[in-house]
Amino acid sequence: MVELKDDERIDYLLADRKRRIIQSQSVFAFSIDAVLLQHFTYLPLTRGKVIDLCTGNGVIPLFLSKRSKVHMTGVELQERLYDMAIRNVKLNDLESQIDILNEDLIGLAHKIGFHRYDLVTCNPPYFKTIDLDKRNNNEHLAIARHEIYCTLDDVLKSCSQLVKSGGKVSIVHRPNRLAEIIEIAKQYKLEPKRMQLVHPKAEKEANIVLLEFIRDGSPEMKVLPPIYIHDHEGNYTEEVAKLLYGEEGSRLHGSSSEKFRL
Amino acid sequence: MVELKDDERIDYLLADRKRRIIQSQSVFAFSIDAVLLQHFTYLPLTRGKVIDLCTGNGVIPLFLSKRSKVHMTGVELQERLYDMAIRNVKLNDLESQIDILNEDLIGLAHKIGFHRYDLVTCNPPYFKTIDLDKRNNNEHLAIARHEIYCTLDDVLKSCSQLVKSGGKVSIVHRPNRLAEIIEIAKQYKLEPKRMQLVHPKAEKEANIVLLEFIRDGSPEMKVLPPIYIHDHEGNYTEEVAKLLYGEEGSRLHGSSSEKFRL
Repeated sequence: MVELKDDERIDYLLADRKRRIIQSQSVFAFSIDAVLLQHFTYLPLTRGKVIDLCTGNGVIPLFLSKRSKVHMTGVELQERLYDMAIRNVKLNDLESQIDILNEDLIGLAHKIGFHRYDLVTCNPPYFKTIDLDKRNNNEHLAIARHEIYCTLDDVLKSCSQLVKSGGKVSIVHRPNRLAEIIEIAKQYKLEPKRMQLVHPKAEKEANIVLLEFIRDGSPEMKVLPPIYIHDHEGNYTEEVAKLLYGEEGSRLHGSSSEKFRL
Repeated sequence: MVELKDDERIDYLLADRKRRIIQSQSVFAFSIDAVLLQHFTYLPLTRGKVIDLCTGNGVIPLFLSKRSKVHMTGVELQERLYDMAIRNVKLNDLESQIDILNEDLIGLAHKIGFHRYDLVTCNPPYFKTIDLDKRNNNEHLAIARHEIYCTLDDVLKSCSQLVKSGGKVSIVHRPNRLAEIIEIAKQYKLEPKRMQLVHPKAEKEANIVLLEFIRDGSPEMKVLPPIYIHDHEGNYTEEVAKLLYGEEGSRLHGSSSEKFRL
């Protein structure tokens, strides 16, 4: 049994009734960005090591461990979230597959070694601190969303130091920063190889970008077909409903957005 | 009257029965890429100057002059294509609005002046010379498609030297080179501001990218909703049919791809 704090709840990890996850609306609850990132990510299945930076409550390793037996490490700076991630690993009996570290991603390779991972994943803070909303004084959410403790440069530098040559880095971010992401990634020898844009609706600008880099890769990339979150009636598209509810659930739930809290 | 060479024909400029264009299958005939580029491009309407690099038979200035009264310059290195572009300007009585120069884009600003244009457009060669198909020995087509006389770096450098600070650069290219384009553009202070991806069909990877840069712009960009060329039946989508045939024509032609030679 794991302990649950006052503001916490236990959810199922989407359609999967075998995985559960401790969440908290006031501290950390995973968003559709995490669902899209884990889905987008190519994963070593039997050999290799994975590390997830800015892991929060450990949502990405929890998802990825459904698809792969390889060892995974989640890294979280905030002690309150680290503690949640630790309990999530226990709650799902995944202690033998997933480690959680309470560490800063800046300089992490100096502590745990350079170029040891086959895959690095990260759902980093999207917003510059200049955009920080002073009225929103929830520290945990502010740190997860804004570049208070790490900038885009810090994140990509750390990814580049942790991943093996030829290994993959998979991130989710905002398309308004795409040019900056690509420029910085290339400086750190992370070559963009695969990109997918996510639009809230077919006729709207993209608001999420998924990117896969290969360390020391050749400069040639693919742009996958885009993902649309909602259809014209405001329901989840079939593709997204399948991601959220699974094949079975998307038929049962009839793709209604209201039935899923994201 | 303008002279027509043996391998040339005169087409209408798509749905516009007032604009005509000399083309040649063996030398230069515009592609859907040019149609998409002119459509994507934000254009000064009454004041300012426009320059189109790699103008070929002058197709981009011919299109843009339908929407704007500003002065336009087309630049073409190949004498055979330059000659075609000159005749196209005459054929449409546009000598007072469009100039065509038979010049190399490399070092062009040293001849005609730095930072004098409000808008630079370019549909450059997409392919590296390493990809040059030795069997395809048509010199004109090879020069238009491969980086024989100018590389991506040359093109973006020249765009950056010609455009005013705060002015726009609008290009069409292949998405597989997107990371390279963004990296080089930023080195030349061309900040990506607007991007649109074009997919042959909804479920296919993108094969065309449209990009707008602002010289000395702030680092923040938009990704527009994508364009699909064909629907699931292989007909042009409504959006593309309108581009090709106009509002009226797309209804008349019922979006059939076979009726338009592109």
